[in-house]
Amino acid sequence: MLFSFEIEKKSEEFPLARVGIIHTPHGDIHTPAFIPVGTKATVKALTVEEVKKYVGGEAVLANTYHLYLQPGDEIVKKHGGFAKMMNWQGPTFTDSGGFQVFSLGQALGHGVSKIATSEEISQREAKEETTNHEKLAVIDDDGVTFKSVIDGSTHRFTPEISMQIQHKLGADIFFAFDECTSPLAPIEYQQEAIARTHSWAKRSLDEHKRLGVSESTGKQQALFGVVQGGAYETLRKESATVLGKLDFDGYGIGGSFTKEDMGTAVKWVNEILPENKPRHLLGIGEPLDILLGIENGIDTFDCVAPTRIARNGAIYTKDGRINLYNAIFKNDMSPLSDDESWYTHGYTKSYMHHLFKADEMLASTLASIHNLKFLVTLCNDAREHIIKGTFKEFKESFIKQYYA
Amino acid sequence: MLFSFEIEKKSEEFPLARVGIIHTPHGDIHTPAFIPVGTKATVKALTVEEVKKYVGGEAVLANTYHLYLQPGDEIVKKHGGFAKMMNWQGPTFTDSGGFQVFSLGQALGHGVSKIATSEEISQREAKEETTNHEKLAVIDDDGVTFKSVIDGSTHRFTPEISMQIQHKLGADIFFAFDECTSPLAPIEYQQEAIARTHSWAKRSLDEHKRLGVSESTGKQQALFGVVQGGAYETLRKESATVLGKLDFDGYGIGGSFTKEDMGTAVKWVNEILPENKPRHLLGIGEPLDILLGIENGIDTFDCVAPTRIARNGAIYTKDGRINLYNAIFKNDMSPLSDDESWYTHGYTKSYMHHLFKADEMLASTLASIHNLKFLVTLCNDAREHIIKGTFKEFKESFIKQYYA
Repeated sequence: MLFSFEIEKKSEEFPLARVGIIHTPHGDIHTPAFIPVGTKATVKALTVEEVKKYVGGEAVLANTYHLYLQPGDEIVKKHGGFAKMMNWQGPTFTDSGGFQVFSLGQALGHGVSKIATSEEISQREAKEETTNHEKLAVIDDDGVTFKSVIDGSTHRFTPEISMQIQHKLGADIFFAFDECTSPLAPIEYQQEAIARTHSWAKRSLDEHKRLGVSESTGKQQALFGVVQGGAYETLRKESATVLGKLDFDGYGIGGSFTKEDMGTAVKWVNEILPENKPRHLLGIGEPLDILLGIENGIDTFDCVAPTRIARNGAIYTKDGRINLYNAIFKNDMSPLSDDESWYTHGYTKSYMHHLFKADEMLASTLASIHNLKFLVTLCNDAREHIIKGTFKEFKESFIKQYYA
Repeated sequence: MLFSFEIEKKSEEFPLARVGIIHTPHGDIHTPAFIPVGTKATVKALTVEEVKKYVGGEAVLANTYHLYLQPGDEIVKKHGGFAKMMNWQGPTFTDSGGFQVFSLGQALGHGVSKIATSEEISQREAKEETTNHEKLAVIDDDGVTFKSVIDGSTHRFTPEISMQIQHKLGADIFFAFDECTSPLAPIEYQQEAIARTHSWAKRSLDEHKRLGVSESTGKQQALFGVVQGGAYETLRKESATVLGKLDFDGYGIGGSFTKEDMGTAVKWVNEILPENKPRHLLGIGEPLDILLGIENGIDTFDCVAPTRIARNGAIYTKDGRINLYNAIFKNDMSPLSDDESWYTHGYTKSYMHHLFKADEMLASTLASIHNLKFLVTLCNDAREHIIKGTFKEFKESFIKQYYA
């Protein structure tokens, strides 16, 4: 089966929200959907059976930057692509590597991260002056030269190289190479950066066409363009307009947002992007962000937060986030999940507290299953409510309870 | 169902070897069997589904010492026993706590561990004099006072206390409280120690009878006596004779052995112990040890080695142990297991090398599944070969290939 996107139903309440199916050569993704991240070709602490059966994940997203450095794209190719390497049977994504190059490289000076409150940004601004010299990535109009976080060796990504690597990684859906800027960068810099991103988008498309099917899987891959523009309305709209006219199979929305305007920025973009193509919000995954994204026309999400916070004992519940290290859970015999159909219904909070205190790996496994299931379920519930025309009520009631 | 042991078939080649079924209130164990260890009520890095489905483990053994300290036997009792706490549906064992009290306490001075080569023992002897003052466990005829490895707090185990704790932990099979001596201790000390172990065995039986069914599970538990005596033939035989006459449901063989005489020591004991009761070799689990144990009449084994070495990249194969950190595996596209029916057939050695190098938890999970499956399969194969009358040939051929 080739790649295609089918809109099953548009929301009656929000003009941009919709429910659909992304068809890929390795299976379908029912949208809106949360895509678990398998950075280095493993969803941290989980087997693929757990991702499929207990989480209900329909696809996995791996990071090009990380797989390129470790184990290397040639070894992934020898396996027949990263899905085969990790033994995952369903659809897959790879990101462009851009975000990591800039966040692990230049961002050591610039503070690129996916989302931040205004307060966090102020704190970073204060720190900025002292760390700005530590650039590990140097950008020119042709590409980026950067140092490996693993061994400090020097590497170079261009749009063509990113496409070549991603063709070897062999995901069903992959992304054009883009420049991910700091939300602190002035508008003049952002303008330069999106000019580069747009030029790189065209070069990515050309190189993808030249390369043809994935050399690892023999399958046609779908290329998504990445809309940038920081927090600037004019730039986001310009980026959506320029990229929307190019022959991409779908779109990613990249870059950093302040927490306050994430929904607004997504709206600016999705009002312009072609309606019949899927839209992925890159690296965003707090429950509120997901609901605002869905409201404003996002189809798929990925984020490392649910598994990262899980490894630190933090768990999503309908009543907000809790931390299982807290001594109040020592004697709490209630199940980790209230829902009997969830895998984590079988474990008490007291047992989880014990596993975390004893530094047992199973703590991370169970907590990761739980948090991923929470976000997958949030998207599935949103899907059901959009179909029924009750998404607005669902969203408001969820937010009221979660953020009470 | 109450506890019972059924011998299905005796070996025609080795007078002590046999095949049987241990029936417990929570299911059957087909012997000889390797029992995965779940020290703190979790088989490290595995879910219970993985232990059951991918490993084929029929029972789990937890450590009384560890669960008593963390999360505490009262919390385990609140869950209805450690099996319910960890969501394990099958049969369970707890050890007496004796080994850990002595190995983590006094052994800081005395060098108690499960098995050692003569060379290791000589090294320890050299070190002994300098560390002998660091006793964290003090023994008297009534019991042992020891310091917690977690917080240094002082605790006391007596036979009665061990029974009370193990009744709360609620395993189907549990062990009498015993003194585990260092293989370095002189015969005079070993004589004192087994006198205590025998006195404690009787007190354990009396306290078990007084307590009745487990207060956590409401089920009758089976109590195994623990034969001690170090590497001394006279003491091992004396211990088997004394304990063999007591009303235990089965026997554990405890204490340390030198690698060279493990099989011999087990033989001394099993020639004396009542034939119709199951025999567990405590904490022993190298492939050769298991085969020698089976040959000499052992029915069940437990050991932390398969999961401990797995977390360090070491894997059992039919051709011996390999370490997946080794660079030769970077490009090795062969499956972790040759056997297609094994879960770890789905993963290449190259992928495993990558996961270990990248410090991914999945590496420990897959390697632990593999090593436990290896030992469970070794016991299952031994079972089949005893039934067919071909165990000797199987054992010799396995050893020849494994230790080539």
